[in-house]
Amino acid sequence: MKQQIKTIAFDADDTLWINEPLFTSTRLKFEEILSHYLEVDSLEAELYAVEKRNLRLFGYGVKGFMLSMIESAIELTESKVSAKDIQSIIDLGKAMLEHPVHILPGITETILALKEHYDLMIITKGDLFDQETKIARSGLAQHFERIEIVSEKNEASYQEVIDRHGIDISSFLMIGNSLKSDILPVCNIGGQAVHIHYKETWLHEKTEPHHVNGIEYLELNNALELLEVLRV
Amino acid sequence: MKQQIKTIAFDADDTLWINEPLFTSTRLKFEEILSHYLEVDSLEAELYAVEKRNLRLFGYGVKGFMLSMIESAIELTESKVSAKDIQSIIDLGKAMLEHPVHILPGITETILALKEHYDLMIITKGDLFDQETKIARSGLAQHFERIEIVSEKNEASYQEVIDRHGIDISSFLMIGNSLKSDILPVCNIGGQAVHIHYKETWLHEKTEPHHVNGIEYLELNNALELLEVLRV
Repeated sequence: MKQQIKTIAFDADDTLWINEPLFTSTRLKFEEILSHYLEVDSLEAELYAVEKRNLRLFGYGVKGFMLSMIESAIELTESKVSAKDIQSIIDLGKAMLEHPVHILPGITETILALKEHYDLMIITKGDLFDQETKIARSGLAQHFERIEIVSEKNEASYQEVIDRHGIDISSFLMIGNSLKSDILPVCNIGGQAVHIHYKETWLHEKTEPHHVNGIEYLELNNALELLEVLRV
Repeated sequence: MKQQIKTIAFDADDTLWINEPLFTSTRLKFEEILSHYLEVDSLEAELYAVEKRNLRLFGYGVKGFMLSMIESAIELTESKVSAKDIQSIIDLGKAMLEHPVHILPGITETILALKEHYDLMIITKGDLFDQETKIARSGLAQHFERIEIVSEKNEASYQEVIDRHGIDISSFLMIGNSLKSDILPVCNIGGQAVHIHYKETWLHEKTEPHHVNGIEYLELNNALELLEVLRV
């Protein structure tokens, strides 16, 4: 770490708890439903195209994903998908919203050790209601002094959060699994960042390596390695 | 006003701009679609029952409303609704998300006059992404020093916002169209409130009169009357 860190902010989905595998397993069940109508290998690209098209209107989150699955099903089956199957797609989404929140290995120990030395924050992107209920269900909320749910993670939204809380950006460290959302924008406004790679990353979160050029950030394998780096 | 007011917070939907008529006109188009399957008088009660059942999972906002319309259509038609009609329902919801934001009469003049004398806030409930885009499209954002989007408006959520901004509750005035969401919780934690009746109020926002007993709040016909009351 270049500077003395005072505030450490964690991304939530796929940094504190498992998220993307739930989208992946839901997509596999969605493909199973549509396999009664068409030859299905993978519908990842088709579904992603609909999600991306709808992002401007729906933003991030499970409800937008549900609506994009339904729209995708109607398109791909040329309007042959039955109402019963559409209800099954809605039920897949509802199961996601009720799914238990599984904390990633090492997170609880890391958070408990860090909170003795640093101000801890969560900065997460997505649907307000969905993120709030996940934070509540995670049982981790009481360890964080500030929780920020933003609709998009970019330089402007990080700057707004930093300014609003009167944080000195040079003492700010962001931890997350997405180079695009957690690492690059924070480094670009003068903060520090640690990337903890998560095995599955949504297509939308993938950034071409050349965007990373010239930006310095730490790469760790898991949250517990943070304690070594920060010498806690 | 009992005390010197320093901060004035406005609700957004149906206080700053028109919202509920958009839900009502969408419901009428939804009923028109379903009239090809069943005898339709009004489906307000049926749709509201599905919305209420789903509120725990979806929270407030247009995307949850879209999903509840689809689920309602499947239930009411006993799964006979066609994929094409479900796409039409999705398109109704998308049109809501893109609908121009119509500022209510007197609001712009009132805001411009009040901002010279008071700290102005927006406190609105609903879907983060949807509310943010409406605030941006309204063109009013620059007049407000603080904008808070909460997932539920109750005593706890108002108290959290008040505390976080270091506001003295006795100098806080809330303006809104909903007794349940804007007036009662604020009065119950020691703030002052002005109710500006809006002609259409969603069933969920209706509070029985006996809840209002003992709680003192001002009732105005429109925002401009605020200027008289506050002698601006």
